[in-house]
Parts: sequence; C-alpha cells; structure tokens
Amino acid sequence: MALLHEDRLFPAEERTRAIARRLYAGIRGLPIVSPHGHTQAGWFAQNQPIPDPVALFVQPDHYVFRMLYSQGVTLEELEIGQARIAEPRKVWRIFASHYHLFRGTPTRLWLDFAFQEQFGLTERLSAATADNYYDVIEAKLATAEFLPRALFERFGIEVLATTDSPLDSLKDHAAIRDLARSGVWKGRIVPTFRPDPVVDPAFDGFAANVEALGALTGEDTAAWRGYLRALEARRQYFKTLGATATDHGHPTAQTADLSEPEASRLFASVMEGTAGAAEHELFRAQMLTEMARMSLADGLVMQIHPGSARNHNAQLFARYGRDMGADIPGPTGYVEALRPLLNRFGNEAGLTIILFTLDETAYSRELAPLAGHYPCLKLGPPWWFHDSPEGMRRFREQATETAGFYNTVGFNDDTRAFLSIPARHDVARRMDAGFLARLVAEHRIDEDEAVELAQELTVGLVKRAYRL
Amino acid sequence: MALLHEDRLFPAEERTRAIARRLYAGIRGLPIVSPHGHTQAGWFAQNQPIPDPVALFVQPDHYVFRMLYSQGVTLEELEIGQARIAEPRKVWRIFASHYHLFRGTPTRLWLDFAFQEQFGLTERLSAATADNYYDVIEAKLATAEFLPRALFERFGIEVLATTDSPLDSLKDHAAIRDLARSGVWKGRIVPTFRPDPVVDPAFDGFAANVEALGALTGEDTAAWRGYLRALEARRQYFKTLGATATDHGHPTAQTADLSEPEASRLFASVMEGTAGAAEHELFRAQMLTEMARMSLADGLVMQIHPGSARNHNAQLFARYGRDMGADIPGPTGYVEALRPLLNRFGNEAGLTIILFTLDETAYSRELAPLAGHYPCLKLGPPWWFHDSPEGMRRFREQATETAGFYNTVGFNDDTRAFLSIPARHDVARRMDAGFLARLVAEHRIDEDEAVELAQELTVGLVKRAYRL
Amino acid sequence: MALLHEDRLFPAEERTRAIARRLYAGIRGLPIVSPHGHTQAGWFAQNQPIPDPVALFVQPDHYVFRMLYSQGVTLEELEIGQARIAEPRKVWRIFASHYHLFRGTPTRLWLDFAFQEQFGLTERLSAATADNYYDVIEAKLATAEFLPRALFERFGIEVLATTDSPLDSLKDHAAIRDLARSGVWKGRIVPTFRPDPVVDPAFDGFAANVEALGALTGEDTAAWRGYLRALEARRQYFKTLGATATDHGHPTAQTADLSEPEASRLFASVMEGTAGAAEHELFRAQMLTEMARMSLADGLVMQIHPGSARNHNAQLFARYGRDMGADIPGPTGYVEALRPLLNRFGNEAGLTIILFTLDETAYSRELAPLAGHYPCLKLGPPWWFHDSPEGMRRFREQATETAGFYNTVGFNDDTRAFLSIPARHDVARRMDAGFLARLVAEHRIDEDEAVELAQELTVGLVKRAYRL
Repeated sequence: MALLHEDRLFPAEERTRAIARRLYAGIRGLPIVSPHGHTQAGWFAQNQPIPDPVALFVQPDHYVFRMLYSQGVTLEELEIGQARIAEPRKVWRIFASHYHLFRGTPTRLWLDFAFQEQFGLTERLSAATADNYYDVIEAKLATAEFLPRALFERFGIEVLATTDSPLDSLKDHAAIRDLARSGVWKGRIVPTFRPDPVVDPAFDGFAANVEALGALTGEDTAAWRGYLRALEARRQYFKTLGATATDHGHPTAQTADLSEPEASRLFASVMEGTAGAAEHELFRAQMLTEMARMSLADGLVMQIHPGSARNHNAQLFARYGRDMGADIPGPTGYVEALRPLLNRFGNEAGLTIILFTLDETAYSRELAPLAGHYPCLKLGPPWWFHDSPEGMRRFREQATETAGFYNTVGFNDDTRAFLSIPARHDVARRMDAGFLARLVAEHRIDEDEAVELAQELTVGLVKRAYRL
Repeated sequence: MALLHEDRLFPAEERTRAIARRLYAGIRGLPIVSPHGHTQAGWFAQNQPIPDPVALFVQPDHYVFRMLYSQGVTLEELEIGQARIAEPRKVWRIFASHYHLFRGTPTRLWLDFAFQEQFGLTERLSAATADNYYDVIEAKLATAEFLPRALFERFGIEVLATTDSPLDSLKDHAAIRDLARSGVWKGRIVPTFRPDPVVDPAFDGFAANVEALGALTGEDTAAWRGYLRALEARRQYFKTLGATATDHGHPTAQTADLSEPEASRLFASVMEGTAGAAEHELFRAQMLTEMARMSLADGLVMQIHPGSARNHNAQLFARYGRDMGADIPGPTGYVEALRPLLNRFGNEAGLTIILFTLDETAYSRELAPLAGHYPCLKLGPPWWFHDSPEGMRRFREQATETAGFYNTVGFNDDTRAFLSIPARHDVARRMDAGFLARLVAEHRIDEDEAVELAQELTVGLVKRAYRL
Repeated sequence: MALLHEDRLFPAEERTRAIARRLYAGIRGLPIVSPHGHTQAGWFAQNQPIPDPVALFVQPDHYVFRMLYSQGVTLEELEIGQARIAEPRKVWRIFASHYHLFRGTPTRLWLDFAFQEQFGLTERLSAATADNYYDVIEAKLATAEFLPRALFERFGIEVLATTDSPLDSLKDHAAIRDLARSGVWKGRIVPTFRPDPVVDPAFDGFAANVEALGALTGEDTAAWRGYLRALEARRQYFKTLGATATDHGHPTAQTADLSEPEASRLFASVMEGTAGAAEHELFRAQMLTEMARMSLADGLVMQIHPGSARNHNAQLFARYGRDMGADIPGPTGYVEALRPLLNRFGNEAGLTIILFTLDETAYSRELAPLAGHYPCLKLGPPWWFHDSPEGMRRFREQATETAGFYNTVGFNDDTRAFLSIPARHDVARRMDAGFLARLVAEHRIDEDEAVELAQELTVGLVKRAYRL
C-alpha cells in the first residue's frame, strides 16, 4: 500500500510514459535550487522544532485552509490566526475529515508526498486515520531529524531564497552566514529584496516605512534622491548576504518613465498622503523602472509578480489581515504596461527581468512574444494557482512554441510550507519529463535533446537566470 | 451498423479507456437530475403529441438553425418563426442534406443519440436517408410512447426544472402538481424564478411588467419597498410549486450595494424611463444583491448567467425576435463585479450562488479562485457553447485544481430541446468518466475515489447544491 | 539517420496514430493552395538564384532572428538589415551554434523539413555541422533546380497569393502573366489587395500615399468620393491580375458605419494631418465597412488581421524599421468591434469576411459563435505565433464545436520564407490528420467523414472560401 505511485503524473500512454520515466530518472536526484519562496530564515537560524502537525500542514498553508473555508469550515474552528494552537488534534481531525475536498488539486499531491516520503505514512488521510497520522507526525517532529536544518539537508536543497522587506535587518540571514563561517552549518539561504512596503504607497504604513528606510540607511528619504539612494544602499546590503534578485508584487505590470522633476513631484505627493489611486499606480509604475535601472547597475535579477487583487474579502481582511486565501487574480496586460520600461531598458542584454502571471491568457498572446524578442525578458514558471500539473502543462504548451525553453527559468516553489518544497519540485520534474516525453514521442525533438532540456529546466536555466 | 459506439467520448488510450468504462458503468443508469433548463411545463401538463420531426429537432433548437444559417440557408427556407410549419418534410430534407455541417459539434452527438436511442435509426442522416428518417420519426411521434410524459419516464428523469418569469401564473406547474396529488402522473417538474423581465430595465416592456407584478401580488410596485415585497411574494409562490432556485441572465456579473435611499431613487429613475444604459446596469447590479439578500432569507439558490451580448444581429432581431442564435459572448469579469455583493454576503455559508460563464478565461483566473475561497460560491457547469466534450474537458482541467470538485454542482442540460436531455447527460457522464479516468491513470487519485466522485458529479453534488 | 520521422506530429497513442497515418496518406500529395502569404512576385518574375544560406534562412525570417536576439545575439552580428551580407558563413555559424534555442518551436520543424527534403541534410544543425550545411546549401542554391520557379514547381504549388500595396504597379505579376501567356512558365501567382498604406492614417506617409493613389487612378483623392473611386479602381486592377482577396492589418477589429457627410469630414481631417489617435482609429474602422461594401460589389474576399501592437521596440524600430520581430499581440475584441459592419452587411451570404486573431481567447468566446451564426463570416487558420502544432490543436479544439469545420477556410502559410512553404503545409496536414484521428478514435465522427474533412481542410474549403 502506498500513497505515491512510481509513475504518478506521467502520461498514461505507454510509449510516452516510458520516455518520461527515463527523462525523470535523469533529474529526480538533482539538488533543489529554490530561487523564490517564502520560508523564513529564522527557522534555520534558530533551528527550533516544529510544534505539531497543524502548525506544519494547516496553519501556514492558505491553499489548505481556503479550500476548507470555501466548504463552510470556519477559520475559528481551524484556529487560524492564533499564535499558539489550543487544540491541534481537534483541528487536525477537521482537516482529515475534509481531505476528500483536495481530490484533483495539487495540494493533495504535495501533502501525500510529505506524508509518505517524510513520515512513512501510506494509508490515505481521512477521519479514520486522522489520529494515527497525528501521532506519527507529532512523534517525528520531536526528533532531531525533523529540525529545520536536518530537513534542509535531507531535501537536498542547494540554495533557498527567502523574500524580505528592505526594512528587515536580515539578522537571521547574518546568523546563518556566521554559522557557515564558523563551520557549524553550511546551508545556503539567501534573501530576496522585496521593496513593496517602501515603494507601494497603498501598502500599510508606507510613509512610516520610508522614514524607517531613511533611519536605516542614513539617507534623507523625504527627498526623491535620498529615497533612491537609500534603496540602492539596501540592495547593496542584501547583496552582501547573498541576494541575487529582487521581487515586485504589484497589482498590475504598469511601468512609467517620468522625468526626474515629475518623479520627484510625484514622490512628494505620495509621501504627503494626498495622492489618489491613480497616483499610487503611477508611482509603483515609476518605481519598477527605477528598479530596472538599479538592477542594470548592481546586477540583481528583477522578478515581477503582478495581477492579484489582494484581500478581496473585506470582512476577513478586517479580522485576520493579509494572506488569508482571499487574493483573487484579474486580467493582466503586459504589452502596453511594460512599454515605458522596455523602451528604456528592453534591449539591455545585461539586465534580467523575470515575468510572472496569474492570467494564463497572457502566455501565448503577450508573454511568449515579449520574451521571444526582448533580450532582458524571461518567463517565470506557472505561479500560485497555476503551480499545478495542468497549470504547468498549459504553460509549456502555450509558451514554448514562441518563447522556446531557453527564455524560461525553471521552477519556483514559491511556498511558505517548508515540507512541500521537495514535493513541489518533484511535481515540476515529473510534469517537465512528461511534456518533453510527448515532444519526443511525437518526434518534435530527439531524446538526447530532451535529456539535456530536462537538466536545464531543473537546474541549468535556474542558476543562470538567477545568477546563483 | 450503429450511430453510437459503446466507447464514444472515452480517451483512446487503452489503460485510461478501461478505467473510464468502469466509471461510466457505475453512473450510466443513474436518474437524470436536471436543475436548470428551458423545457415547458405545458408539454407535460397537456401531454400533447409532438407534431412532426421538424417541430421536434429543428424549430426549437437554435444550435441547429444557427449553423445552417451561417452556411447560407435562410430562416425562411427553414420556416423558423412559423407557428405551424407548412412543409415540414421539405425543411427536414434541407436539414438532412446539411447534416455534415455538424461534424465535430455536440449537436451531432445529441442528435445521433436521439435518432438511435429513441427512434432506432442506425444509418447516418443525409439527403439519401432524409425521407426514411422523416417517416420513422413521424410514425413514432404519433404513438403513446412518444407523448411527453411517457418520454419523461423513459428518460429516467427524477426532477426537471423549468425557467419562468415572475409574471407567469405557473398554471401548468399547478396542473402537474394536481396530477400528482390525484395520482394521475407523478413526474416532478419544478419552476425556477427568473426575474429578468421585472429586474432588467432594458427588458422589453419592463415598466409594464413591474406594474403587472404589482397587480399579481397586490403590492404597490411603483414604490421601491412595494416592488421588493412583490418580488419576495412571487418567490414564495414559486416555492409552493417546488422551486428551489432563481436564475439571472444579466449582460455582466456587476453587483452593487447601494443605500436604501440611493436604490429607491434609482428605481424611480428606471421606472420613469429616463435612465440611460449606465443606470440600467447599476439597477441590475443592485438587484443581484437584493436577490442574494432574499435568497439568504428564503433559501432559494441563486444562479448567475452573465456575459452574453443578446440579439447581436439587428436585422434578424427586428424580424424574428429573441433566441435566434445571434447571442454572442464577450469578455466577462467577476472579481471586481461581484465585490459589492460578496463584501456583504460572501461569508454566508447558508447562501448558495452558482456562477456560470461564457468566457472560459475566467475559469482558472477568477472563478476557481473565487469558488475556492468564498463559502457562498459554487461553479456551474460549462454553459451553452461550452456544453460540449472539449468545453467540459477545459472546465475540469482549468477549474478543478483550484476549486476542487466539491465547489462544482454537476451538470445542467440547459435545453429547450427535450429529446436532447438524455443525450446531453450521457455526454456529461462520459466526459466526467474520461476525465476522472485520466486522473486515475496518472495516479493523481485512486479509483475508489473516482467511483465516488463520478456519483457526486452525476447526482450528489447536484441535489445538494440545488437543494433538491 | 534522419531529421524527420515518418510519424512526426501524430498523437503517440497507437490506435489514434494509425488513423492519423491513413488520413495523412490521403492528403500528403495534394497540391499546395496558398491563398495568403508574403513571398515576392519578383522572385518568380526574375527567377534569380538565392545568393546564400543566410539570405535564404536567416535574413528574411523574423521567427529566426527574434529568437536569437532574445538570447543576446545582436542584429549587427546577424547582419540584419544589410542589403548584401558581408560574411554569410560567419552569420550562419552563429545561427547554427544557437540552433538548440529552437527546440520545441515550429521554426525547428520548418527548418528541419527544408534541410532534409530540399537539401538532403540528415544530421542535426549545430556548431559542428554548420560548415557542412553551409557548403551543401550554397552549392545547391547555385543549381537550376533551386531557382524560384523550379522550387515553385517542385513544391507542387497550385496557386500562390502575394500581399501588395494598392500603390504597387504589380509589374512583376504582369510579367508572370505574360510568361504564362507566352507559354514560358505557367505558375499561378496572384496579388492580394492590402490597402493599409492608403487607409490607415497612422501609416508612414499616409497623405502622400493617398495622393499617389490619385495619380495612379486619375481620381481626385483629395475628396472622399474620389478617394473611394480610386480604391475601387485599384481593386479592379488587382482583379485583372488574378486577385481574389483583400487583406487588412489593423491594430483592432473596430468597424464603423458613418453617414456620408460624417465620413467625408473625417477623411478631410485625417488628410489634413490634424487628426488624433481616436480619429485615426475611427477612420480605419469606417474603411473596413467601406471595404466590405466594395467586396459585396466586386466579389473580393475580405481578410481581417487585427490585434498586433506593431514595432513595440522603439529603439529597434528607429534603427531597423518594420518587421523586426517586435510586433506583440494584445487583447482583441470582435463582438462590439464588428457590430457596425455586421449590422449593415452581416446577413449577406454573397460576402465573405475571414477573421484572424492573435488573441486565442476569442476562439471559443467570440469568433466561433460569430462565424457559427453570420453567413458572411469565416474563421481564418491560427495565425503567426499560433501557426504551430499546439496553436493548431487549440484552434481546432476551441473553434470546431461551435463553428464546425465548414466555417473555417483551411490553412494559410503566411510566410516570407519561401522554403518554409511545403514544411508549413505539411505541419498543418499532419496536425489536421491527428485532430481528425482523435475524433475518430473517440467515436465522435466516422473515418469516412474524416477522410472527406481532411480533403476539405487541405484544398476544398480553401478554394471555395478564397474563390480560387
């Protein structure tokens, strides 16, 4: 009995499956390169045990609790938002008795992988098996093998990027660096510069954040030039701790290319707090272009993640805050939105901008044609809701013919659920093996090429695109 | 010789097909639950014979005549819009000689099913077989086995919902109820409350309709409060005749949440006939939220069918009126459109709103994320042009990974072509069996889970979602 | 050893592949009917040898150099834009050493076809084989068998349409006609009337072009009526040289139906050069309706190719001009855009308008419902970025169920790369065979129907739609 089948996710057709098996065999053991995600450096700096199965699998994973919530389970029952879970076994039983809801979702694949591969569980999770699961997981979590650093090593992670505010002291990253220097632990965990709190005027506490940025850097961030210098300084600081990339989570992909006086006036206006939504949007747009300019200078790779209407559920947001599974994508345009930035920097082969989307219609219509032309553009992997078998298949089918494989950058696990990292990479490797196997079976490429591409998609393109 | 193959619509790959066969065997004989459609209660109340093959297969089916029209056959030749068809055999011959046009369309599948299963015809329809078809069908239509009630029973229909104006007396539904009470016939046919004629200011005769609504309920529908009470009263009346749902066919999914004075003023303006398109839209938007409020109170499930530009062909509309195959979908947004309603009622687990779309781009981008979060939202099946094998496949592939299966509601036949009901349900069952079989063959779910899901998609989810 | 496998592009599943093989066998030898493309009549009128491999495969093909450019190869290195390539072998080596970039793209399929079928090359192009390729191709290009007319005949081209400005004298077409009359060469090469330079006010030199149109026709093109008469006259002239179609490459599909005084005033405004972007758009919109009117009168089939943001890369455009691989599609609406034209001419069965899109979301949402209703509308094949195996598959899957096969018009190669013509038609034939084979394998149509459809998609529908 097993939760996982050796051939899972491979095409059923025998000729294609046999090729997929061979391709997968060549990449399954490769190290995990994780250039974009939301784990916390503190886990590894402090190396504290994970308290219980709920803190591991339910509480940090909005993929999990959004589905339960959509079916009438309340967030109160799940103790979401509690610092310390009062009755973890009770929450676990609720989760277990609703496990059928995840049939056909990637969450099911990730969870089953962790259950079997990390905890040796082989009977399906359900109300009947809930307590056994709880006991087994709880017991293992108390062992040294399940401390964060041990898991990091067992997962074969070569490098793991976190996502961090410019206001973050990065003390945990510094601590991890010191561990390495002193030979205690040599795991490579790098920060990513995510400036939303100080470049998005709609971000909670924006003006105060900009002020704090000034305090941190000794720059006068009340002035446009000082503000830019402060950002440059923090980017440099991130680089000293290993950062190779920035990340930008804007509502749209809009960019702008204002003159310095215009930009300076706009900055003054958003800092005063008198600016409206259109000025906020224009400021974010201008800041993407400023960030591209800085990237060209300091070599940090730029990631743009646009298109999510955050905190769509007003009642939930008022009570629980951000990241509660209520971020909903909308139509996202790239062609006109990116034009100002591209007109200025689009032909710079020394610049790398990685584009993501939640609007799959952009794959074949906009993103592949853009990435298949501009030297600075690359396509990020299927993101968030589309980090799934069908989502990955659609991405390859819709982007490859115009952008090719070499304008893509491999896989991102993009997760705050640490245990799902090997599972997610395994899904990506299997889906890529299956897609390449189809191209071979249909005689569109040769198998030796597919072998090479499988390596590239798993490691080569990732390292080169992210300069790791 | 046969029109229908036992394995039709199953994936060709043998491993997957074998699983699909097993899954289908478990659901093929289940009763038909039809919670949304456009048959007429009068057919069953009066139980009159269907006059001829054209009245059965051509005249009521805009899927059929739109295709013929697109290829240069005139509606005059087809005698569309005639109360009594003068030369049905001539029309039938035109249809038969163009039957090749339907290759690759679902209409072909539905028609072949009816031809073989209901009429025993096994040679393909063509100019050569037209007269034999006509004779066989005409002869059978004259028999007792082909009266509407007999067909209803032979089709294994457990419940059939019609769609009705609030101004409808529902006398046919009352007559059917009386037949059941008196033991004459016990077919369950329920109305659905479709208020477009009295909530859409752009609907032909809107003001007069609202006045008639007042007359019917004894409320003063010239005033906002009286108008709302009148709607509530008609909903109650529909419920007494078995209604469990409402249906809303708006141009967009826009909702609004106005204050009572604002809503009241807007109502006065649209009643005066001075309001423009924007006010019409705002009024429809407000009425969706009012309907949600009423649904929360009276338990009627709410269906929203947005996104069709009705009567696109002005010349045809001027001559033939509505439903002539000239309704064309456009881009349809949900995320911002539904926000006002969801901000008010989105977290109500006691409310059910079923969303449909003609814009398939919304499946993975907006609808699945919304339904995978909000407790009140569920996804309706692929609608209209997408009620087809490829349309169903796309729906499952694009919606399931984020919304799961349990935020969907099974199949709607949505038809005015009575004979197509078993054919349409059969297509849906086969496509679901095929999709589930692929998940099993790719080891994404186990076969026992697929067996359970097949039952749910066919009956369980339908009955629970529609409270049948 | 071979670059091409006999079964390439067929589904891997054995049952389906066997059917695809049979269907393809029935169409692989059919003549090429090419009703839309961008080869030059002068090639055949003058019949000059192609100078070298780069002039053949790299320089004219923006599919090729855009991919190289996107990966950091400069256009200078590739000598793009040079009238005479200084170091063709050096350019060829750069191309060859980047050939892996084309894995998974249709360009790879087209090139391999030409390499093997035309030049007998069977080892994959790479840095290692670059020189041998160069030598083999260069040697063959110097032979009589590789002169344009000889290739035309070897390719089995029955008719080839070029695309031409109304200002073009069509002297090369006239020369080809004279060759036929004198019995020297009987290849059928017809012009297509593409009026963008004289109907799009944003086109470089618009006013001067309109003036030149007047000079060419003896009409007073400074006046609206004279302008229209001049266009009519040029259409007639194109017809005398075999034209059966017009082509319209607008940014959007917008149409308009202004009164004559309105149109006349608008024309005056755009001619004066004072009009803004909105008036330019309205003028193009009006001109589509004028063209439809003329088509109804003179029988020329109308092709509309909307939705590309041309010359997106401002720096590149400034230096190299048009058609440099920097045209990027955007969202394209049809339903409201075409309404003015369709309200006027939509029900004319004597008019044929072929619609194309770069926005695949329109296939199932807008284009198939429109073409499945309006007698004048047909759907063009997948265009440009979507002229690819996956693009063709999506088109058939998304358009067929609503529009049927008979509202489509077969394949367009749409190319300026002459050597790719047989390769492109071969891809289309294989993909159609594969798609039809799936319908047969899933028992959705019978094999005798698929045989008939394969013929129609390859030749029948093309000739009838384009009146060839």
